[in-house]
Amino acid sequence: MVDFSFCSYTEFVFGRGAEKKAGELLKKYGAKRTLIHYGGRSAEKSGLLSRVEESLSDAGMEYTTLGGVQPNPRLSLVRRLITLCREERIDFILAVGGGSVIDSAKAAAAGALYDGDVWDFFCGKAAFPKIAMPVGTVLTIPAAGSEGSDSMVITNEEEELKRGVSIQCIRPAFSLLNPELTFTLPAYQTACGIVDMMAHTMERYFTNERHVELTDTWCEGLLRTVIRNAPKVMENPCDYDARAEIMWAGAMAHNNVLGCGRVGDWASHQLEHELTGLYDVAHGAGLAVVMPAWMKYVLRHDVARFCQFAERVFDVQADYFDMEASAFEGVRRLEQFFTSIGMPTRLSGLSIGNDRLEEMARKVRLQPDGKVGNFVRLTPDDCLEIYRLAGDAKQ
Amino acid sequence: MVDFSFCSYTEFVFGRGAEKKAGELLKKYGAKRTLIHYGGRSAEKSGLLSRVEESLSDAGMEYTTLGGVQPNPRLSLVRRLITLCREERIDFILAVGGGSVIDSAKAAAAGALYDGDVWDFFCGKAAFPKIAMPVGTVLTIPAAGSEGSDSMVITNEEEELKRGVSIQCIRPAFSLLNPELTFTLPAYQTACGIVDMMAHTMERYFTNERHVELTDTWCEGLLRTVIRNAPKVMENPCDYDARAEIMWAGAMAHNNVLGCGRVGDWASHQLEHELTGLYDVAHGAGLAVVMPAWMKYVLRHDVARFCQFAERVFDVQADYFDMEASAFEGVRRLEQFFTSIGMPTRLSGLSIGNDRLEEMARKVRLQPDGKVGNFVRLTPDDCLEIYRLAGDAKQ
Repeated sequence: MVDFSFCSYTEFVFGRGAEKKAGELLKKYGAKRTLIHYGGRSAEKSGLLSRVEESLSDAGMEYTTLGGVQPNPRLSLVRRLITLCREERIDFILAVGGGSVIDSAKAAAAGALYDGDVWDFFCGKAAFPKIAMPVGTVLTIPAAGSEGSDSMVITNEEEELKRGVSIQCIRPAFSLLNPELTFTLPAYQTACGIVDMMAHTMERYFTNERHVELTDTWCEGLLRTVIRNAPKVMENPCDYDARAEIMWAGAMAHNNVLGCGRVGDWASHQLEHELTGLYDVAHGAGLAVVMPAWMKYVLRHDVARFCQFAERVFDVQADYFDMEASAFEGVRRLEQFFTSIGMPTRLSGLSIGNDRLEEMARKVRLQPDGKVGNFVRLTPDDCLEIYRLAGDAKQ
Repeated sequence: MVDFSFCSYTEFVFGRGAEKKAGELLKKYGAKRTLIHYGGRSAEKSGLLSRVEESLSDAGMEYTTLGGVQPNPRLSLVRRLITLCREERIDFILAVGGGSVIDSAKAAAAGALYDGDVWDFFCGKAAFPKIAMPVGTVLTIPAAGSEGSDSMVITNEEEELKRGVSIQCIRPAFSLLNPELTFTLPAYQTACGIVDMMAHTMERYFTNERHVELTDTWCEGLLRTVIRNAPKVMENPCDYDARAEIMWAGAMAHNNVLGCGRVGDWASHQLEHELTGLYDVAHGAGLAVVMPAWMKYVLRHDVARFCQFAERVFDVQADYFDMEASAFEGVRRLEQFFTSIGMPTRLSGLSIGNDRLEEMARKVRLQPDGKVGNFVRLTPDDCLEIYRLAGDAKQ
């Protein structure tokens, strides 16, 4: 187990009608003037925005609103938010939506207190500041885990780049999680969210640390829970209990309780970011394609860990005379599961051809030593091989 | 899943030398004048106290010290601490020790800001206040989970009563967890700690809530991890990795991440408190006796849950033609495990006779409706039956 610090201070309020507590929570956390930042029209049409606004009014909180976030949060929107926060003397941002809405709120919360341009933080031009305005969330899409995490990802649409940053000061002060708000999510978006939270878990699971037994069992338990409940929400989108399991799993998959004592990998996320940057695919769908390809490429690095994964998550009975086959069987069942919830597992399923694989491999964000990932340190050539595996229908 | 709020804001700093960060953390959390509150002579002799003091001096922090806590923290000590805090204008308490030291620090942190007597909170005479001085911890005994919990237990030695309170404001601001500090723990104390953290998990596990799948798997994973690592620390007390698993499990067993969405039982803790109140036994040893007896008494209330426990925690293969037998087999293996680490499973193992069982059953702290526990609502007569089971060598 490696040394670690863990402080997940977010107050989670979970259950039916949780969004109605927004005003009360903002008051508790000292908001004076709140920006309610939400996504598309669905929050307006469903009545969610009205309920949140009513809750703020009832608590006597001042606020202003801004809607219109698209998936894969764009830098231009973050800049607009920052201008608005300054003009309106905002001191608290309440994000009503999914990961994109929350991530742009987080970026704005830090950017508004910074003199330069917010992209400086993401391109490495400036160190990320240790202060940000507080952020609260009303979650509508369980997926990114941004409602409890210290991380965010922003897309620079001009440069076709998607970049992430993790820092404690952007962890939300509170998050209101009502599983009922997810009943109306389309099946495709539900499935993308499921892949995303599984990926957050698997990125942490595949580590070279030995003796991370407690967190191993928690990762495995979270994956099993999501796998067991996914068909239920696909069959019946209004199954409260199944939606609740998935919503709570999404938050716990990324607040980093699963990362304690471990060094996660995160190469798959970097590889996926290039897909989104170039092709604007859904993050979860991109991960469903990249992650199995990454697994096949690195599996021989630690067959034992992949066997453990196969057995404990997918009930693969180990073949002690051919451990590698057992390990590969785990990856096959993961793909099978992704397929069962309507997710692609090859680039072709995202309508992406093989023509820009080299370009993507060249653009993958590397660490200072010119490599990416921790479980196996990958060169750009390795990345290209993984993209090729992801593009190969016959693999 | 029941609605819940969860906010575990404690900053955990985990790893070798964690105690040396005490000064830095106190500074971060705004301490001006700290009381270092520690247990017996072991913290002095081992050099731990010196290292902590040096860390405070290096950070330029003012402090005063008070040692001498006995197991099962006593009200008289809490009162002494409160007087000292007021006299010395203390604004932060750093507890260096196990659950007893931390619990008395928590009680003093709240009591020092209260005009009346601190026992008022525990006997129900006054509602617990919403403010307390901040508390930090340097943990030396993984057991009570007090380093990350919102709860504490104090013994009123005059009235032979042990009472607990849970409230958010006493959750530690930070906790420094160095597994090396536990290398010198005697085997008996290590075992008591293991039982205590398992009990915290099992109290939450046995619930009437359906659809608590994620937390079920996490409870089971924690129990398995502790069971797997217990013989390792018994065999080799300086096994860093095994000590680390157990230390982190102890913290996670009681910060209530395992209680999210569930209603825990907690009757066994109330039943055990009467043992400690009358006989001053070690809390963990008391739980090892009470909990299996409680299980046998309530098992038929939900055979399915006990079967799940038996299979997933102890690898009991279900006998589908006799589920009750499978369920009982789980309890038998739990007792077997307790025995394997040197814990008693009957009152006689604590040198307690059957002469005061009625008195204990009469004193068990009941809820307003005259019952205790949530999985099964127990009357004082039920409590007496459980004490009798615990006292019966032949059961």
